[in-house]
Amino acid sequence: MSNFMAEFLGTLILVWLGDGVVASVALNKSKGKDGGWIVVTLAWGLAVAIPVYIFGAISGAHLNPAVTIGNAAAGNFAWNEVPTYLGGQMLGAIAGATLVWLTYLPHWKETEDKATKLGVFCTAPAIRDTKANFLTEFLATGLLVFGLIGLGQAEMVAGISALAVGLLIVVIGLSLGGPTGYAINPARDLGPRIAHAILPIAGKGDSDWGYAWIPVVAPILGGIVGALLGTSLF
Amino acid sequence: MSNFMAEFLGTLILVWLGDGVVASVALNKSKGKDGGWIVVTLAWGLAVAIPVYIFGAISGAHLNPAVTIGNAAAGNFAWNEVPTYLGGQMLGAIAGATLVWLTYLPHWKETEDKATKLGVFCTAPAIRDTKANFLTEFLATGLLVFGLIGLGQAEMVAGISALAVGLLIVVIGLSLGGPTGYAINPARDLGPRIAHAILPIAGKGDSDWGYAWIPVVAPILGGIVGALLGTSLF
Amino acid sequence: MSNFMAEFLGTLILVWLGDGVVASVALNKSKGKDGGWIVVTLAWGLAVAIPVYIFGAISGAHLNPAVTIGNAAAGNFAWNEVPTYLGGQMLGAIAGATLVWLTYLPHWKETEDKATKLGVFCTAPAIRDTKANFLTEFLATGLLVFGLIGLGQAEMVAGISALAVGLLIVVIGLSLGGPTGYAINPARDLGPRIAHAILPIAGKGDSDWGYAWIPVVAPILGGIVGALLGTSLF
Amino acid sequence: MSNFMAEFLGTLILVWLGDGVVASVALNKSKGKDGGWIVVTLAWGLAVAIPVYIFGAISGAHLNPAVTIGNAAAGNFAWNEVPTYLGGQMLGAIAGATLVWLTYLPHWKETEDKATKLGVFCTAPAIRDTKANFLTEFLATGLLVFGLIGLGQAEMVAGISALAVGLLIVVIGLSLGGPTGYAINPARDLGPRIAHAILPIAGKGDSDWGYAWIPVVAPILGGIVGALLGTSLF
Repeated sequence: MSNFMAEFLGTLILVWLGDGVVASVALNKSKGKDGGWIVVTLAWGLAVAIPVYIFGAISGAHLNPAVTIGNAAAGNFAWNEVPTYLGGQMLGAIAGATLVWLTYLPHWKETEDKATKLGVFCTAPAIRDTKANFLTEFLATGLLVFGLIGLGQAEMVAGISALAVGLLIVVIGLSLGGPTGYAINPARDLGPRIAHAILPIAGKGDSDWGYAWIPVVAPILGGIVGALLGTSLF
Repeated sequence: MSNFMAEFLGTLILVWLGDGVVASVALNKSKGKDGGWIVVTLAWGLAVAIPVYIFGAISGAHLNPAVTIGNAAAGNFAWNEVPTYLGGQMLGAIAGATLVWLTYLPHWKETEDKATKLGVFCTAPAIRDTKANFLTEFLATGLLVFGLIGLGQAEMVAGISALAVGLLIVVIGLSLGGPTGYAINPARDLGPRIAHAILPIAGKGDSDWGYAWIPVVAPILGGIVGALLGTSLF
Repeated sequence: MSNFMAEFLGTLILVWLGDGVVASVALNKSKGKDGGWIVVTLAWGLAVAIPVYIFGAISGAHLNPAVTIGNAAAGNFAWNEVPTYLGGQMLGAIAGATLVWLTYLPHWKETEDKATKLGVFCTAPAIRDTKANFLTEFLATGLLVFGLIGLGQAEMVAGISALAVGLLIVVIGLSLGGPTGYAINPARDLGPRIAHAILPIAGKGDSDWGYAWIPVVAPILGGIVGALLGTSLF
Repeated sequence: MSNFMAEFLGTLILVWLGDGVVASVALNKSKGKDGGWIVVTLAWGLAVAIPVYIFGAISGAHLNPAVTIGNAAAGNFAWNEVPTYLGGQMLGAIAGATLVWLTYLPHWKETEDKATKLGVFCTAPAIRDTKANFLTEFLATGLLVFGLIGLGQAEMVAGISALAVGLLIVVIGLSLGGPTGYAINPARDLGPRIAHAILPIAGKGDSDWGYAWIPVVAPILGGIVGALLGTSLF
């Protein structure tokens, strides 16, 4: 399997499962309605761990432009591979969001609130404050990429590191996700936002493009700083 | 131990623990009453992981006709073994559901709602819509069987893959289970439905046979597509 | 370390952590008050997993007379070792319950209900029905001991089996614990009940001795049947 | 990387993620608001497991003066290294708490209650009772350090012990955390309390210095006793 296909399928699964849990807890009549923050954060962690298990040995399972660009900036990854990875990630994220729409097809028209429906696809801040939201996404993604490099240098038998990556995602969500809903991944946020804009979702509103740059730019900068720190320290 | 016995006992344990958690959260006076979606989805994941640990080295622990038929269709499993596996799975599911009935014996008459009692045994859609319900079960089982093949080709030391399979079940439940309650396994749905029809459950209603074909046919088709995709890609 | 000491300390930790979580969710003013069924069941699983990690290589970490007697009946364990194991388990359970009392010392007088306070120490059925309660404890412990033997014959690298045992406890609690609160261990129930009778707990009631034989006798019989089944099948 | 840097960064991450989850469940408008005890305890366990994964092979990842001093008292660790470790831990805890303040920057002014805001940084007892609070912290830290030594002597393949340590933290929180909020780590409590006193947190109150000595002295004494017991027994 090519690196492109691994990043495409891996990010597709990540977004399908990740946005899927938001659909489950947020959309009316879902059996997972109001399942709580533990449901959301655990599912996002597993939504990362499963494709890391499956595709890790093929492409490294970045599944996140902040990881790809951060590692390229730190000299751990070839810049000429970056477009292939980012392309797979973005297309995978759009495809995964489309599968969420299909999986929950009869639930969209049962849900009145337009922001709730957008929130299935992409993040929105709890308190809208450009500098603070940027800072939160920057810090959380910095820790993510630093942590991935830290976990990468730790000795583990085969089959543990994907689990450890999943647990890192779980705890970042639990602990740092409160203010912005932790995009920490430009593809995970922008891809589904594009899907939301394109798909004929019943009773949808606008796609909040004014906020869209923050969960793209802040995670990339955070990823670069986290990768530089991690690479220089270990 | 024969493959038949492994599939029988494995599916018995799967359904006993899986339907058991629904009994615990749904039946009146249970100490697990209203335990929430995290309780249901975590228990179903472990209800799969435990028999995969125990029986994985014997029969491969399919425990699911969609896995067996999907893998046969993709050339990974001998067709002439399929009836043995399906027989063990169906009989195990009926036996497991019977053990749920016995485990919760005094709780059935304390629970008024007939649909709640049926819901302990088999799935029902949140919104009844044949095409959409079929699509959800098809997609979720497709991801399940694709994921099982993906996890199967990943390198893991002994004792990790059963855990990874359990985590895959957990996240499919958390993320894709909202619309239909994620049967994703014909034996897990049809076996307990038969048990519900046969057993003298206090104050039971009908067994909703009109819906019964969806969680049988859609998972089998999804399993075939998932197995073909997974087998061709890895 | 002797087997007696390992069983004593292991069961002490098991009951301290296990009964501790019930104290946390049940006693007034505790920060864990009303934490939910997921809190209780996860903690009980870890309350077993931790001492199995620590003492597994010494005594086998039975920590449960139903495991010890079941394995003796199935020929897997020497009968002349049984009194030593049971003595360590019972004394450890009493000591562990005493530590729960001390850990939550100011909370007992803040909690009015006597049954709630007793419930921290030992189990009580959701619906009092001798035959049904006996059956539930018999079945759940049968699955426990069968599962332990099944997990014991599965290939796992060092450090996984204690985790798998913990997950087995978690799912038995989640799925089969609703009717009786899953004693599934005579020492875990009788030891703390004795502690409750002896300790000067503020505003305590009686120790419900009428029910006390069920979580002793039913788990032992279930353990014997589970061990015989498991030993004959694997 | 030096031991100082490993302890500094490890404790920084521990407190950032640990205090972060309290911010998430406690501060108004956070998406994790009222996430429940399972959210808090799981995140604290992972907040320890992640830096133990990353820094374990460098400094041993004590991240806790009670672990450092306890092991020094038991002869497992050189006393002349203690100041380096404690310095890294204290500075890391202050830095981690500062990052929590920055991550949740717009949420402080949305939260009225001063005790809630202090509670993000450091612990406070559910019932203020010097002897009982001291006893709880002493006992819980004793079990922590005894358990760490017990886990340390158990055979595990590479990559499992950090997970086991995380699970030990989870269950101590779930089971013994109800009365005092389980500091069980002087740096985790005193460092953020200092940060609370220094940082310009919107609408903050006092830092409850009257209680501050208990989560410092009791964990150190508990750690010494736990380390002595563990070292003598294994």
